[in-house]
Amino acid sequence: MHISELDTPAMLVDLDIMERNLARAAAYASSHELRLRPHTKTHKSPDLAKLQMDRGAEGIAVAKVSEAEVMLAAEPEDLLIAYPVIGAKKLERLVAVAGQTRVTVSLDSPEAASQLSSAVSTAGLNVRVLAEVDAGLGRIGVHAGHELLELARTIDRLPGLELDGFTFYPGHIKALDDDAFESLERLAGMVEATVEDFDRDGLSRRIVSGGSTPTLFHSHRVRGMNEIRPGTYIFNDRNCVACGCCQLEDCAASILTTVVSTARKNGMMIDGGSKTFFSDSLVTGTDGYFGHILEAPEARFFKMNEEHGYVDLAASPRKFAIGDRVRVIPNHICVAMNLHETAYGIRGEEVVHKWPVAARGKLQ
Amino acid sequence: MHISELDTPAMLVDLDIMERNLARAAAYASSHELRLRPHTKTHKSPDLAKLQMDRGAEGIAVAKVSEAEVMLAAEPEDLLIAYPVIGAKKLERLVAVAGQTRVTVSLDSPEAASQLSSAVSTAGLNVRVLAEVDAGLGRIGVHAGHELLELARTIDRLPGLELDGFTFYPGHIKALDDDAFESLERLAGMVEATVEDFDRDGLSRRIVSGGSTPTLFHSHRVRGMNEIRPGTYIFNDRNCVACGCCQLEDCAASILTTVVSTARKNGMMIDGGSKTFFSDSLVTGTDGYFGHILEAPEARFFKMNEEHGYVDLAASPRKFAIGDRVRVIPNHICVAMNLHETAYGIRGEEVVHKWPVAARGKLQ
Repeated sequence: MHISELDTPAMLVDLDIMERNLARAAAYASSHELRLRPHTKTHKSPDLAKLQMDRGAEGIAVAKVSEAEVMLAAEPEDLLIAYPVIGAKKLERLVAVAGQTRVTVSLDSPEAASQLSSAVSTAGLNVRVLAEVDAGLGRIGVHAGHELLELARTIDRLPGLELDGFTFYPGHIKALDDDAFESLERLAGMVEATVEDFDRDGLSRRIVSGGSTPTLFHSHRVRGMNEIRPGTYIFNDRNCVACGCCQLEDCAASILTTVVSTARKNGMMIDGGSKTFFSDSLVTGTDGYFGHILEAPEARFFKMNEEHGYVDLAASPRKFAIGDRVRVIPNHICVAMNLHETAYGIRGEEVVHKWPVAARGKLQ
Repeated sequence: MHISELDTPAMLVDLDIMERNLARAAAYASSHELRLRPHTKTHKSPDLAKLQMDRGAEGIAVAKVSEAEVMLAAEPEDLLIAYPVIGAKKLERLVAVAGQTRVTVSLDSPEAASQLSSAVSTAGLNVRVLAEVDAGLGRIGVHAGHELLELARTIDRLPGLELDGFTFYPGHIKALDDDAFESLERLAGMVEATVEDFDRDGLSRRIVSGGSTPTLFHSHRVRGMNEIRPGTYIFNDRNCVACGCCQLEDCAASILTTVVSTARKNGMMIDGGSKTFFSDSLVTGTDGYFGHILEAPEARFFKMNEEHGYVDLAASPRKFAIGDRVRVIPNHICVAMNLHETAYGIRGEEVVHKWPVAARGKLQ
């Protein structure tokens, strides 16, 4: 089927680009002896998780128990729930997942550790646990040093929990500038000191897990880190381009839209707005636009309502008529994908595959 | 079932408040002889559309053919697709919907009118059409005056199309300040002039459709307008409070979340981020927060990642422990609801009803 036979808006994934992205990350991870555990929240598809594992990934990561349930279909040997699992209902479901595959959980509090311990040990199971340390984002994670060691010791003592190392998420590092490389150096210092602390205390640090898409190809700078968990890298997006971690031609996902109005002089409205693209601005704040239009690189996608995309064509030599279609690379593919029920795999202009975004909207 | 038995995050709708909102709008519309045709993109539920029609609404509005298909379950006598329907696939589906109930379409171009005419007349059907004029938002809609008359005449001539009047969306009017009231006056002037133009040409202006939630209770100022299409009013949200069109206690929808980390001093992380709340800022730009926490009004919900909500509790006398739950009124309920599979109706703290967000993610 040709792209033109799809109705719009439609989420397209260029499979050639996606496969190149997967191969590049796998080769990098392998050459630096880094374990690659991709975060599947980006694509929310067991089909793509399987593809990642077929191409070098050792296990996968998810953000929620509901995502873990969906990802069981990919038959991962190892499933990291990279989020503290709190509350009886979620723990009950986590136990069910842990009965089917090896589960690792990252967490940052004795409360989370204790709840998890009760749930899994009551069920006669055990799960691996990574103690989470804040790498500078100020989100989840205790402070490095004393607090982290205390947390690791607590985990180590609790029944049903197998301390497997520590984890962090360098989400504060976005654009790859001098500050970013300094931050990576500081992170390396923290990791080295923590490894020494863990070794002194006899605590397992088999897994030292970090890594994000912006920092992916600089992960080797964080000496001592042996696992990375990038998510966005499978598709890349406008944020990645703005951060300097890929080029536009590395962006595999785009959204096909139709021009529905040209009533505004030098402008057009497309049939995708915030319910199609999401309303995230660029993380770098480089510009205020909401996507890159492949057919009109000079166009400015400057505003959205829920179902309307406002495009200014003043600077674009190419103009459009009602019914014309354009493909738009979104700012943030993880949140855009989550708005779509289906994604279409393309090679050139042929639609060769389609898959459900199976964990779309899995919130709990 | 008590609220505490729900897993989080969960979309709650306080039915008492919702019913009060519906009654208030219906009473206002009735007292001013305004036809109320609510936009269902806010709730995306045929159950709630039915409730709106049971309580005074005459027909409903949708943004997409896919939403129209879902809303057929509410058995509306009249279904307005308030969006130009472009392309053969969508028109084919529109024809199927028009075979089941009376359909009205708003559009702003001869191209859209001509495509629609071919599709419906080939099928031996006819649909009502509203010519769309720009009221100041600069989105869909031709200019008032000559352009609008030309469009209306085109619609009037085409087979299968029954010109039913004109429509506009005053989405540029947000906060109810002096500027807003001046804009409403200008809008009234435009409407009056257009009605005269239509009458001079013998064009039908049975329906003069406008109205949004911010301007809802000031609709009578736009003399000559006889239909309003508010969407958000069923729930209200933080945007509505910021615009001055309701109070916090009129907000029916809130999202139940759990505290998952307290590792940051004076802060907490809740298990809802942008994939739960959406990332829209307040339309008024009044503050940079992402929700109002009912249990801690002084707390600042200042940042989100996909599954993390960052809350600063420095100014809040109430502190929270891991596992505590808080209810959060979102900035923009239309986009937040679209992220949830299910909504839970509550009375006090009892969950008394649950419904699927049936048109969630219907993009085409």
